[in-house]
Amino acid sequence: MFTAIRFEQSVLHLIDQTSLPLKETWIPCRHLEEVAQAIETMVVRGAPAIAIAAGFGLVLAVQDSAGSTWGGMQTDFAAAVKRLRATRPTAVNLFHAMNHFSALAATFNATTDKAIVLQRVRDAAHKYYEDDVEQCHRIGEFGARLATSGKPLTIITHCNTGALATAGFGTALGVIRALHQRGLVKHVFADETRPFLQGSRLTAFELEKENIPYSIQVDGAAAFNMAQRKVDWVIVGADRIAANGDTANKIGTYHLAIAARYHQVKFIVAAPSTTFDINIATGQSIPVEERAAAEITEFRGVGVSPAHAKVYNPSFDVTPASLIDAIVTEKGVIEAPFTENIRRVLNS
Amino acid sequence: MFTAIRFEQSVLHLIDQTSLPLKETWIPCRHLEEVAQAIETMVVRGAPAIAIAAGFGLVLAVQDSAGSTWGGMQTDFAAAVKRLRATRPTAVNLFHAMNHFSALAATFNATTDKAIVLQRVRDAAHKYYEDDVEQCHRIGEFGARLATSGKPLTIITHCNTGALATAGFGTALGVIRALHQRGLVKHVFADETRPFLQGSRLTAFELEKENIPYSIQVDGAAAFNMAQRKVDWVIVGADRIAANGDTANKIGTYHLAIAARYHQVKFIVAAPSTTFDINIATGQSIPVEERAAAEITEFRGVGVSPAHAKVYNPSFDVTPASLIDAIVTEKGVIEAPFTENIRRVLNS
Repeated sequence: MFTAIRFEQSVLHLIDQTSLPLKETWIPCRHLEEVAQAIETMVVRGAPAIAIAAGFGLVLAVQDSAGSTWGGMQTDFAAAVKRLRATRPTAVNLFHAMNHFSALAATFNATTDKAIVLQRVRDAAHKYYEDDVEQCHRIGEFGARLATSGKPLTIITHCNTGALATAGFGTALGVIRALHQRGLVKHVFADETRPFLQGSRLTAFELEKENIPYSIQVDGAAAFNMAQRKVDWVIVGADRIAANGDTANKIGTYHLAIAARYHQVKFIVAAPSTTFDINIATGQSIPVEERAAAEITEFRGVGVSPAHAKVYNPSFDVTPASLIDAIVTEKGVIEAPFTENIRRVLNS
Repeated sequence: MFTAIRFEQSVLHLIDQTSLPLKETWIPCRHLEEVAQAIETMVVRGAPAIAIAAGFGLVLAVQDSAGSTWGGMQTDFAAAVKRLRATRPTAVNLFHAMNHFSALAATFNATTDKAIVLQRVRDAAHKYYEDDVEQCHRIGEFGARLATSGKPLTIITHCNTGALATAGFGTALGVIRALHQRGLVKHVFADETRPFLQGSRLTAFELEKENIPYSIQVDGAAAFNMAQRKVDWVIVGADRIAANGDTANKIGTYHLAIAARYHQVKFIVAAPSTTFDINIATGQSIPVEERAAAEITEFRGVGVSPAHAKVYNPSFDVTPASLIDAIVTEKGVIEAPFTENIRRVLNS
């Protein structure tokens, strides 16, 4: 399985997802700040992958603290957590990871051997990675069971939710992989996913490698596609899911959910339990990142629009739970009533 | 008023809309084939503008026939009409123009002075151009009257329907211009309109020149925008309208119409009467052009997707009349029941 994240000999290697699939460049990160910037510039993207990379970022911070006092190490660790939390606001997996590693750090004290601290943080980062792979496989398994008709499905997906967006295998694309292994994929239509083109660059790259039949389409073509042919499923990932099931995901997802409902196409979200934020009641409270105008007004540094064109560039949108048929997690499939069932499944 | 089409001293000059707004290059066309290729490659695009350019293309064909016999001239003219009809299949204005000029040609015979033939065809092409400008102004007038609240409107538009898509002023963008002249535009959100980016390139260029407040958004952001703020109108142009009001327009329009209905936003189509094709009962019969994969897999010759990526690239979609609140023509505003009212207004 292809992976976008490797930690080897004290260095975090990230595949540069901004230049895939044309160039396969691995970026070595030796210090926390390099990881933070890789997240900000989307060298690494995808809610689970960001969390995993951030975990290894903390390993780098601890490595760099090796010469410090216990107090200095604590200060450095807290600063590293703060820096990583400030990189991107919407996907909650990052915050989940930061809480997870902060809890681990709280178990150390001035008497803990520094080599042990480093060892434990490194082990935790590797385990976070491995848990994600396992969760993705379970999501794939649970998702594939939703294909109850036994007939190969025509599926629309959005953004990239594959091996590149996770430690490996993927969430929504993991379900597609699991379906394909069972001979249950007729065709995948991958939204190109503007502005960053995760679909036409990354999802197409993964589908191509797996020999899954696919076509890229512009985001605006999804609804017409549903009107033209029988589309069985829309399946997408998630960046944050509120307690009531409202789901933040890549901009365009909400549009797709409305079109799916209009055409009576099943709309499925696939995400690990770390994507839930049960501290917020509804999607209204999910902070939506707005990114730079240049993502829309330029392409690889070449201008597209008039100079100084004004832009509205939310990177995510929020799909209300009422438009979602099922949320597939590693703990099982959640359907309406969501508030109740999310609590039950997450606590199982 | 900016225009994209100029016929001067026996040469048709077309602004190259593929390189706007970064370069303002005028392409001189001296022969019919150059015009046909300019339409095919979208140097000139927009349903009314294509028809106008094609009219001047016939003038060039007649010019080139000057040395021929009457029979040769007839053959050349028929071949020119055939060539132009084969350029792009969806927008009906082109076919309307070809019928119009063919009817004119049928009034000539072997005794008609060749200079008179050329004069009449040229006059007809200029009149076709001027009629379009006048029609756009009337569309703008009728459209602006729909703003009955008297409050400035927040409007989403798709593709480019402005001076560049017509002889001048525009259809949907003509309505926006007319509203702006009355102080009735609060903000325009221009869909970038993948894959050709007519919105972020051309509509932004026109709105910028007119000092109309606007932002570009990716096509997938329109629905979230409607959920985030009060959007009053979606207004778009059309490439072909069936007898029942079903409307073919740039891919993404149907998606937008579904989102507008979901949010109870008024969905308005603006088009001259030459955009109607009352010979076809419903949108099901409108031929939808599929264009080359490279429009999606490349940007200005630079690869985006994996080599040989498969693509679904319909250039248009069809919005059912049931999702349309009003169609604004130069003859007045048409509302449901469409079949009856289209017939009545077009015959008025």
